[in-house]
Amino acid sequence: MAGPIVYHRGPDFPELLTGVVEDAKKLFPTQDELFLLSSSGSGVMEAAVVNTLSPGDRVIVAQAGNFGARWTDICNAYGIEVVSVDGEWGTSIGAERIAGELTADASIKAVLTTQSETSTGAMHDIPAIGQAVADHEALLIVDGISSVCAHPLDTAAYGVDVALTGSQKGLGLPPGLAVMTLSQRAAAAAENAKCPRFYFDISRYRASLSEGRGPSTLPVTLISGLRAALDLVENEGIAEVWNRHARQAGAVREAIWSIGLECFADSPSNALTAVSLPESIDGVELMQRLSQSYGAVIGGGLAHLRGRVVRISNLGFVTDDDIRFIVQALEETLAWMGYRFDRGSAIAAADKALG
Amino acid sequence: MAGPIVYHRGPDFPELLTGVVEDAKKLFPTQDELFLLSSSGSGVMEAAVVNTLSPGDRVIVAQAGNFGARWTDICNAYGIEVVSVDGEWGTSIGAERIAGELTADASIKAVLTTQSETSTGAMHDIPAIGQAVADHEALLIVDGISSVCAHPLDTAAYGVDVALTGSQKGLGLPPGLAVMTLSQRAAAAAENAKCPRFYFDISRYRASLSEGRGPSTLPVTLISGLRAALDLVENEGIAEVWNRHARQAGAVREAIWSIGLECFADSPSNALTAVSLPESIDGVELMQRLSQSYGAVIGGGLAHLRGRVVRISNLGFVTDDDIRFIVQALEETLAWMGYRFDRGSAIAAADKALG
Repeated sequence: MAGPIVYHRGPDFPELLTGVVEDAKKLFPTQDELFLLSSSGSGVMEAAVVNTLSPGDRVIVAQAGNFGARWTDICNAYGIEVVSVDGEWGTSIGAERIAGELTADASIKAVLTTQSETSTGAMHDIPAIGQAVADHEALLIVDGISSVCAHPLDTAAYGVDVALTGSQKGLGLPPGLAVMTLSQRAAAAAENAKCPRFYFDISRYRASLSEGRGPSTLPVTLISGLRAALDLVENEGIAEVWNRHARQAGAVREAIWSIGLECFADSPSNALTAVSLPESIDGVELMQRLSQSYGAVIGGGLAHLRGRVVRISNLGFVTDDDIRFIVQALEETLAWMGYRFDRGSAIAAADKALG
Repeated sequence: MAGPIVYHRGPDFPELLTGVVEDAKKLFPTQDELFLLSSSGSGVMEAAVVNTLSPGDRVIVAQAGNFGARWTDICNAYGIEVVSVDGEWGTSIGAERIAGELTADASIKAVLTTQSETSTGAMHDIPAIGQAVADHEALLIVDGISSVCAHPLDTAAYGVDVALTGSQKGLGLPPGLAVMTLSQRAAAAAENAKCPRFYFDISRYRASLSEGRGPSTLPVTLISGLRAALDLVENEGIAEVWNRHARQAGAVREAIWSIGLECFADSPSNALTAVSLPESIDGVELMQRLSQSYGAVIGGGLAHLRGRVVRISNLGFVTDDDIRFIVQALEETLAWMGYRFDRGSAIAAADKALG
């Protein structure tokens, strides 16, 4: 990315672009059409909605967290009626609840959900939700922004019609590039979707991508970065990338449990671990001490979880030693802040899980 | 930009963000509200439309080129009626034509135009258009994506309500970050604008910017880059940046004229020079030879101008020696391709103009 900026109408760009589009499919994996957009994750969520739905359509939003709730905000903005299937933060929505709503209302056009809910560390069981949706006409639209690379999001096997991800999560790149896949069913829906759209209109992208260009200027530096990230994934193998995320998130969970703490999520994601803190420990102070004493950046609790939860990510190209380092730093800082536990047990549990 | 990625919820981000937002105002210059968006130029054009207008509104699009025509496409996508005030590519729309349409139709809600039309190298006289619009209720919305840094776009002095630019033009950064200013009149229009919007909704940006954050993940790497670009501008002085663009574009024009060629645009911009080629010279071949023999990248003709026009940009942080280099390379390549002229006259004319 630090090399000279590739001219997006220059002779080398089409090969770069078509190569990353093909290779990005291996991340999910998917054989579907794949689009690269210049936006944040929220932008590609809007792209998924406006390309497949119409004002007045009814959809199910299955969510229990900050980023799932964004689906509702986007649908509301476009006059799409939301049947909310929600739960307490930290829970995951069961597929049977979605199946029930679909059976009760045949007019539902789509089910929108989040694979890994970053605000709570919870994972939705997309294969189960996909089975629930498969008996109905509704499209399944999945925000995989923070889950792709941590979990498979196999669009054909799971029955996912639209899958999303972003550059700044599992791919370890700066933010600004987003990815959307579209099944044949979703592409057919796009033909009839009445939501107004220009910037995110995939028909513009489809027309120009066949010429190796974007319809507008693409973030060329991030596309060069994506090439490098995809090469790293190819080298490691996507199955091993998933294994690594499972191993590292598992190690963080074992470490947490070994010192008497709990994960906030009922069904924890392998992208990050949200840790419920004991009453005596303020999460904001914990984050500050980790940053000041160890240079370690972890996430705080969002909204009403501020101070009550901290979130430890292992998304991207994290090493096992990075995990050992953060567990060690957490142990030392919790002890310093007066939390009582068997010193050394967290790092021992993490070490054992990392193998 | 090559440093560690700044965490967009980390402690250092708010100061960085509020600093670049304030300093970016000096580029236009403007005292208006300013927003940074994660999108290409087309995205921020859509943001300007959806935040200030409603379906069924009537607007004037004043354009004579590829990027001006994009205003019409965006308005069409949102059900906004366009009164087209257009002209042949290479011309600029006179302010009196816009004044005439505004007088004839009091329902016009906005005038949308382009300061520097990159497809033709033409400049619109924004001060004159601003005067024409000032007698009416309509908002003036100006695409300054490729003109900011090359020309002033003084929002208060010219009467511009919404001004746009992007990271990849005058600021010399990679693409992916866009800038929009909003006058008080435009902000009031936004309160009543009925176009559906979520990602580009400035009320979301306004709410989070006061906390030093974006409503979604901002392209933090580009924001660090913007900090560096704004420091360069501050160092040189924005008036000198405008002078430099005027001097360098002037030198390219003098060089072109000295060898019997013409600028394609009637009123050439200081951001780039579109050169009309003689029948005997194919523009595509000229570009290829410049690239292969000199490593020099210039733009080709878009749409029906392919092969008939080449476009030489001096936008960004270009040195006078860069201009001498491209003029010399152009002379040698035109001579090699059989175009007859007084050898050495182009570089002499450029040298004289550069002073």
